[in-house]
Amino acid sequence: MEAGMTGRDGGADIGPIGNSPVVILVRPQMAENIGTTARAMANGGLFHMRIVAPRDGWPQERAWRSASGADRILESAQVFDTVDDAVADLHHVFATCPRPRHIVKPVLTARGGAAELREMTGRGLKVGLMFGPERAGLDNEDMARADALIRYPLNPAFMSLNLAQAVMIMAYEWWMTEDETPPRALMTNETHVATRGELENFMHHLITDLDDCGFLRNEQKRAGMVRNLRHFFLRGEVTEQELRTLHGVVTELSRGRKARQAAREVSEKQ
Amino acid sequence: MEAGMTGRDGGADIGPIGNSPVVILVRPQMAENIGTTARAMANGGLFHMRIVAPRDGWPQERAWRSASGADRILESAQVFDTVDDAVADLHHVFATCPRPRHIVKPVLTARGGAAELREMTGRGLKVGLMFGPERAGLDNEDMARADALIRYPLNPAFMSLNLAQAVMIMAYEWWMTEDETPPRALMTNETHVATRGELENFMHHLITDLDDCGFLRNEQKRAGMVRNLRHFFLRGEVTEQELRTLHGVVTELSRGRKARQAAREVSEKQ
Repeated sequence: MEAGMTGRDGGADIGPIGNSPVVILVRPQMAENIGTTARAMANGGLFHMRIVAPRDGWPQERAWRSASGADRILESAQVFDTVDDAVADLHHVFATCPRPRHIVKPVLTARGGAAELREMTGRGLKVGLMFGPERAGLDNEDMARADALIRYPLNPAFMSLNLAQAVMIMAYEWWMTEDETPPRALMTNETHVATRGELENFMHHLITDLDDCGFLRNEQKRAGMVRNLRHFFLRGEVTEQELRTLHGVVTELSRGRKARQAAREVSEKQ
Repeated sequence: MEAGMTGRDGGADIGPIGNSPVVILVRPQMAENIGTTARAMANGGLFHMRIVAPRDGWPQERAWRSASGADRILESAQVFDTVDDAVADLHHVFATCPRPRHIVKPVLTARGGAAELREMTGRGLKVGLMFGPERAGLDNEDMARADALIRYPLNPAFMSLNLAQAVMIMAYEWWMTEDETPPRALMTNETHVATRGELENFMHHLITDLDDCGFLRNEQKRAGMVRNLRHFFLRGEVTEQELRTLHGVVTELSRGRKARQAAREVSEKQ
C-alpha cells in the first residue's frame, strides 16, 4: 500500500464474503472505473477483484475516491500480468462481450450466466467473470480463455455500456439468483391490513351517514351505488390505521353538514 | 437549445420509441448524472425523461458530454417545477426508494415493478418511474405521489447506488420483460453443430489411429477407454469445423509418430 493514500480506513463493512465469482478486469484504463466497479460489485455481493495489466499501474488513489466505501474490495484486489495468470486457479471463466464475433462459443444472457455461476459455486468451483478494457473490450485471445460469453439483452440500437454499468448488471443478477423478496408486498409498519370486519364497520358508518344526508335517497339506485363504493374500497389493501382516518373524515364531514343544517333551521325559524 | 453547445448533433439512432415508462429525475444535482442516466435509459429502451427542478438549471452541456450519444433523450427531456406537474398526465407512478420509511405503501422489487409497468403500458396507460436526488433521495412528499415504491434486492450491507446505476437496473429489467433470448446458446457462425454421424466419423479415425499406435493394446481396458473418450467428446457441442481441425490434429500426430518410427527403423537397419 502506498504512503499518503487517503480514504483507506477499510471502508464500510460490506457483508460476508463467500465463494462468489471473481471479477477480472482486463487491462482497465481508468482508475475511476476500477473504483466504481468495486462499488457495483459490493452492491451485488461480489467481493473478489483481479486486475490484469492496469494501464496506469496499481494501486491508484482515484479508485478509492470513486468506490464510495467499497474499499475492502480494492484493498484485497490482486494484480496479474496476463489473463492466463489471473484465471489459472479458476475452474470456469465467462467473458462479457457486447459485440458478436466470429467465434464458436456458447453465449449466455446475464441472467443465464448468473444462474450457471451460482450452480458452479454451489459445487465448490471457483469461477470468474472477465470484463474488457473500456474502449476496445476483450480481444480474441482473451475470449479464447473463456468457457462462454455473456451478452446482455439490451437495446441493440444502443449497447454502449460503461465498465461499472456492465459489472452492475452481472452483480445484480448474481444477487438475484438467491433473492426471495416477493415481487410486491404492502409495507404496513405499525398498522395492519384491515380485516373484512374492520372494513365492514367503516362501510356501515359511511352508508349510515350517506343515508342520513340523503345521498342514497334514490331507492332504485341505492344498492348499485353501495356496491360501487364496496368495489372501490376493496380494490387495494386498506390498513386499519387508514380506516380510522376515514372514519374521522366521514364523521367530520357529517358534523359540518349537520352544523350547517342546524344553523339553517335556526335562521329559518327567526 | 443554447447556442454554442457541442455534441448536439442528435446523437445515435437509439431505436423505436414506444409507450415506455417516463423516467422522472427529481431535483437532480449533477448534470453529469443526468447524462449518464440518459445513457442507461437508452441501454434499456427507456426514452422519455422528465426533470423536476434541476439544481443547476437546464440544459447543461455536461449532461451531453456524459451521455455517450443518447442525445435524443436529453433533447426531448421536459423540465417541471414540481413533482405534481411532472406526473399530472401519468396514470401510474412508481418511486425508487432504497431505504424503508414509516409509510404504508406497496413495495416492489425491480423485476416485479418492471413487470407491472409492462402490463400497464400494454393497457395503454402512461407510467412513470421517479428517482430522487443523489444524496438525499426522494422525500416523504415525493413518495406520497407514488402508487408504490421500488426497492432493489441488493446487498443490504452496501446499498449505495449512484443515480445512473439505479436507472440502469430498472432500464435493464424493463428491457428483460420482453426479452426472449435463450439463457444459453452456442454461437456457431459459419459452421454448424456436428451431427452424430460426423462425430462418429471422427471417433472412428481417432480409435483407428490409437489402435495403430498401440494406445489401446490392453484388450481388457480398451472398451472402457473408448467409452471415456466418447463421454469427453459428447460433453459439449462440437462443431463440424472443429471436427475437421481435430481430424487434422490426429492425422498430423500420427504422421509424426509414423515418421519417427520409420526413421528409427532405418537407423536400426543401418
